[in-house]
Parts: sequence; structure tokens; C-alpha cells
Amino acid sequence: MVSEIGKYASVTKVLDEILRAMPTRPGVESVPTARAYGRISAGDVFSRENVPRHRSSHMDGYAVKSEDTTSASPTSPVALSVVGEVVLGEEPSSRIARGQAFRISTGSFLPGGADAVVPTEDAKAEGKRITVMVPFTSGRNVFRAGEDLKKGEAVISEGRAIRAQDAGLALSLGIQSVEVFRRPVVALLATGSELTDSPGGEVGKQRNTHTAIFARLVEAAGGVPLDLGIAPDVRKEILAKARKGLDSADMLMTMGGTSVGRKDLVGDVVSSLRPRAMFHGIRMDRGRVTGVAVVGQKPVLLMPGPIQGAMNAFLLSGLPIIRRMSGRKDGEIVVRARLKTGWEARRRFPHFVKVLYVSLGIGKTGLEAEPIVGDTESMTVLTKSNAYVVVPEETTSLRSGEAVDAFLLPGFSFA
Amino acid sequence: MVSEIGKYASVTKVLDEILRAMPTRPGVESVPTARAYGRISAGDVFSRENVPRHRSSHMDGYAVKSEDTTSASPTSPVALSVVGEVVLGEEPSSRIARGQAFRISTGSFLPGGADAVVPTEDAKAEGKRITVMVPFTSGRNVFRAGEDLKKGEAVISEGRAIRAQDAGLALSLGIQSVEVFRRPVVALLATGSELTDSPGGEVGKQRNTHTAIFARLVEAAGGVPLDLGIAPDVRKEILAKARKGLDSADMLMTMGGTSVGRKDLVGDVVSSLRPRAMFHGIRMDRGRVTGVAVVGQKPVLLMPGPIQGAMNAFLLSGLPIIRRMSGRKDGEIVVRARLKTGWEARRRFPHFVKVLYVSLGIGKTGLEAEPIVGDTESMTVLTKSNAYVVVPEETTSLRSGEAVDAFLLPGFSFA
Repeated sequence: MVSEIGKYASVTKVLDEILRAMPTRPGVESVPTARAYGRISAGDVFSRENVPRHRSSHMDGYAVKSEDTTSASPTSPVALSVVGEVVLGEEPSSRIARGQAFRISTGSFLPGGADAVVPTEDAKAEGKRITVMVPFTSGRNVFRAGEDLKKGEAVISEGRAIRAQDAGLALSLGIQSVEVFRRPVVALLATGSELTDSPGGEVGKQRNTHTAIFARLVEAAGGVPLDLGIAPDVRKEILAKARKGLDSADMLMTMGGTSVGRKDLVGDVVSSLRPRAMFHGIRMDRGRVTGVAVVGQKPVLLMPGPIQGAMNAFLLSGLPIIRRMSGRKDGEIVVRARLKTGWEARRRFPHFVKVLYVSLGIGKTGLEAEPIVGDTESMTVLTKSNAYVVVPEETTSLRSGEAVDAFLLPGFSFA
Repeated sequence: MVSEIGKYASVTKVLDEILRAMPTRPGVESVPTARAYGRISAGDVFSRENVPRHRSSHMDGYAVKSEDTTSASPTSPVALSVVGEVVLGEEPSSRIARGQAFRISTGSFLPGGADAVVPTEDAKAEGKRITVMVPFTSGRNVFRAGEDLKKGEAVISEGRAIRAQDAGLALSLGIQSVEVFRRPVVALLATGSELTDSPGGEVGKQRNTHTAIFARLVEAAGGVPLDLGIAPDVRKEILAKARKGLDSADMLMTMGGTSVGRKDLVGDVVSSLRPRAMFHGIRMDRGRVTGVAVVGQKPVLLMPGPIQGAMNAFLLSGLPIIRRMSGRKDGEIVVRARLKTGWEARRRFPHFVKVLYVSLGIGKTGLEAEPIVGDTESMTVLTKSNAYVVVPEETTSLRSGEAVDAFLLPGFSFA
């Protein structure tokens, strides 16, 4: 039965249809700019002023009129009177006249009349006078108004995660709050009579680790996890928790019970909730018993129990859905690497999309990706890898040395 | 004066000396495994059991004795009696005898006597009997005990950030707490009479944005920021806050007042605290007036006021120090890209280490890095870039198309 490819929908088609059945734009809220770090901007933010507001100095030195220095040379130095000092951050109230200079420090605004700065080390100072040995052209060592940022220029772009420097720039412009997309709340429901959440374990039961793992991955993707606990393999208990999840969260992710076994009730339960769209069975190896649905306006991801199938379902279906719900428009991190050893698809599902986990490292010729393979229950496939390659339906093997595009797993670092 | 290279120490030398003057190993604390996400492991954690504990099934199907199927063929199928069913997560108490089979689901433990699994789709079931058409060799569709993880094998390695899957694996093994390195507390002191922390700004003052920016960067590096506020350019006020920072935190980072100007008092203040090691003036452009010291056992980073010099100081000196204090041994994310346009070092400091900010994007031939340059006060150099290249002392220009190694800035994504 599982070999009847026609029964499984393609990964791309499923995602297209599900995203089409979901709202296109998430909700918006306003947050103080200083606390916007990591949030996704809900709109372009434009500068209401020039940066710098006024012309300012590149250097510690003396603000001068460039025309005064035109004739300066080592044999015929020009002497200027230092008539004042610009205080950093203050707008100078006085102007300089011909033959005059103002002491100025880096970043200070140029006084009126000045159009160049002579650096400290190029000016010979004696009391209230300096001598200049070379000409300084107009604009030399001067930062023009609006040179860094022009009034009306974008400071923060819609759909981008706000970084420290982005928030810093906005703050420096006096932008005290920004509109960001609401973080999607993702309810997590583990199913299986064999599972326990008891920290010390329970006789005859397996510890539920999926909720802890996927809660952190939901956070890394920008969502807020909501733990619904465990439902045993009992239809009405799964239904009650699924309803609770859909009532209180923006998305529901179930773990386990999606296979064709007699205790696999999650598909039935989600079907009974009258989804606007639903796919159960996807051309993805591993994880072919994954399901994706939209109930009302809310997406539901039915992840297989075995960890590798669950992770594949999360990466290929869950992540794009959470990104859409988060309003993200930026690209995921993908790097090109060479495979260290060849790889062959499992024979059972050669024409499915395969997820190949790899350990990325820096080799002599650049980035190298070592395939990490194992059983679908193998947690070590995930702990020994730091990235993954999406192998398309038409590809059934990869050669050693072949270039692949690797997506970095959350928490990526080099070993 | 600034052109006298001899007065400036090399970036590498400074870092070596400072790290040598610091404690080699940070403090350790124990945290529940479920809350260890993102923390740095303070030791190797080994598995105390085999995973799986017992042989288990790869497939939904039937556990059989392989020897029963040796003669099976489409023309001479073998019939077996289904005498029981294995419940997932339970250790089967009964054994199978010749001619018998147990119904089994993926991940269930194999009953005694069985050594292969016939998948559901390869067994023709009729009532309590199945017929098998092909031989199944010993071990077929069986996951051996310890196949995923052997007793004594490392689950978590010292110096690595613990990811969702790492914590999940440890939890599944019943490891309820792990030893992690204490997060270093980093005190942040902004200096400058021109600065204000007032959210609405203050007449004649500049908004202090550096504390907000570097607090988030400290967090991204694994530290805990502690805001000491602003000290005006008054010696005893800087000293009081610096002392407070060194008393209450593991590291002090100052911002501003490190130049050679008359109001640049931070270097003097730190010198007066009798550092075990101190460098003020580093061959780094921009950021040559950066200082690094160790007072007692605690590192102090004196960052220049202009944002680009400050960021360079943080990336080249602050980050490696915070990584050491965090116990991190993993590598930073660095990717190879081709420069989209050529770049030349500023003429003033050709033989300094240069930090070239770039915007990394995916081009037709792979990763491309577009240089982003601007004044040292330019915040947009940092908001328009997503990575940086460390250009060594001996290199003064880079050609268009040349390969560079780019370090990803925190919060990296593709535009």
C-alpha cells in the first residue's frame, strides 16, 4: 500500500494549498523599540530626519574654511586663530570668519562658515593659534548631513527580524515603538498511551521527549509554544485536546498516531473537525504519514511519532507555515557544501522528497557535508547533524564531492 | 601620532595576552535538562544505557523467526500463525516458537525468539494466519539494541551549545539535569556628558543607543547584560560606575571616551584600577583606540564611541572573551563567498586589521558578498550588512570576485 505513490501528495503541492487556505497577513501589535529585538517588523519604517542632522566632523581637529588653506604648504604655512570649541552633541551658535578655526571632536557638528576639518595631527598648535602646512579641500573630513541616512529612507523593512543594530538605529532617530507581527501561538499535542510526561519516568511507559524538542524549535522559528500535554490513544481524548488547542492557539501540531495502524486516530479526529483543506500522506521520506490541514483559519500539522519523520514534517511543512504566520519575508540560511561521501535514497520511496541530515564542517577545500543516516526512530541522526539537504523527488543518489545546498538546523555551529 | 604603528598592539597579541590573564574555566551550575536549551555543556554526558534498550521493529508488520521464511517463494509461500501482538513500549513476556508470528508496530520491542520483521504490505493476512512469499534474513527490518546509541557513548559534549534535539536525547535517557557553564554577566557602561537614556530624548543631548545594541549582542553571545547607565565625562563618576560593574559582573564593557581627546578619561580610570594586563591602542581599523584589560580576574573592554569602531572592538575582542567566559568550544559560523565589488583599505591604516562589513546574498554562482562601507559613525553600515570579513594586516585591497570568509552577524538572514 505504501508503495502506491499516487496516494501521496507532493510536498510542494501540499504546502501551496495549505498556505492558500490560511490568512495571508498575521495580526499586528506595537512594541517599544528597545524590546523589539528578534521580532518581525510589520511595516517599513522610514527616517523622519537626516543622519547626521547637520554636517559633522570625521576627526578630532579643527573646523576651518577650506579657502583659507588653499595656499598652505610646508614652506608657506597658513596660521589660523582658534576662536572657540564645538561641544559634542550641541549645535554651534557662532560662525567662523576668514582666518578662524574652531576646535572640534569626532562626531561634533560643524559650525556655520566652516567646510573642512584639519585633523589634530596635521595642525601645529601654539596657544590660540594653529598652523596648517597643506591645503584642505571643501568637504574634507566632513560628514555631510544625510550622508548616513536620508530623510524618508527605510530604517526597518517589513518582514525582517529586527536586529540589535536595527533597533539601535530606530532608537537613535527617536522612533520609540514599532509595529511588529504577533508571534503565533503553537499548541503541541503528544498522542500515545505509551507516553508519560513524568520527569522520573513511569514503569512500562516511554518518556515524551517530542514536546520538549518541538517547543524549542517552535520558539527558534519565532512562535510561542503551548503544551497541551499527552492524549492517550482514545478518540474522544484526542478530540478534546485538539479542540482546546485550536481554541487557544493559532496553530496545532500533533505528534504520533498518524500512521495506518489501528491506534492511529489523529487523522480521523482532524478530519472530523471539518478542515477547509487536508492532506494526509505526503511524498516525503521519512515522514510519509505526515498530515497537514487547515481548520477554520488555523493550520494543523500531524507529525509522525518516529523522531526523524516528525523532524522532516516540521522542517518541510511546519517551518514554512510558522514563517508565514510570523510574517517573515527574509530567507532561511542555506549554504553550499560538498558531500564528503556519497549517498543513496532508501529503495522503498525513491521518488519521494528525501531529507538528508548532514554534519557540516570546514574542510581543506571549503565546507564539507558528511551524511548522517539512521533509523526513523534514531535521535542521534539529529544530534550528530547540524544541517539538512532537501533531496528532490527526481534524485535518488548523490555522489561524493557533489555540491549540495544545506539548510542550517536551529542552534547551528561548527563542531 | 596615529600613524606610528609601533604604538599599537596587534589584535592577535592583545587577545592572546588577555585570555592568558583570565581564568581558563568558567563556573558551573546544574540545570534541569528541559531548561538547558541554548546553555553550554560543562562536561561530556554519556549514555548509561543502549538505545534502543532491546531489539525493536523498523516497520509495522509481523515479528518472525527468519529460518521459517528461508524457503518462501511466490509459488511456495510459507504460512505462519499469528499468536499475539506486541504492545508499543512494553517488553514482550512471551517468546515465539517455530511457525509463529507476533503482530508488531514500528518501534515496538521484538519478542524473544524473533529475529526479523515481515512488513504488513509483504504479508497476506487471513484471520489468525499470514502467508509470506519471500525469505527474510536474520535482522531484516530489526533495529538492534544499541544501534542508535551505545551505553557509554557521548550524548552531549563539553563546550557545545545544547540544542533541542540534544536535550531531547538526554531526556529520553532519563538524564534529568545537566551541568552547564554559568552565563557571564557583562556590565555595560556608556560614558559621555552628551548622552541621555531618556526615552523621549533631552534638549541638546544625544540618545544613548549603544547600551541597547550591545546588551542584545551580549545576549546573542551567551552573556547576561547588566546596564550601569551613563557616566558623564567626570573621572570620579566613571570610576564609581566602573567599580560597581567590576563588583557585580564578570566583565565590564565601556562605551566611548577611549580616544586621545581631553574628555577621554576611561583609559585613565581603568589604568588606576591596577589591571594585571592592559592594552590601549590596537592595530584595528576602525577602532584603533580600543582598549582591553584584565582587572583582578575580570576582563574589561574599552570600546570607542563611534559605532563602527565599537562594533569592531566587540566582534574582534569582546566576542572571543565572552566565548571563553561561556566555555564555548564550538566554531563560529563562517561561510565562503565571492566579493561582488572590489574593496580598498583606508589609506590611514593600511597595515591594521580591517573589518569589512558585507551584505551576503545568494547569487547565480553561489554566495556573494557586497561590501558596505561608510563613516565610523555610520549606523547604516551595520543595518545594511549581515556579515563581516576580517581583513588581515598584510592585505590592503580585495578584488571583485575574490573569495572571502564571512562571519555571520547575530540575527543573520538573507534579504
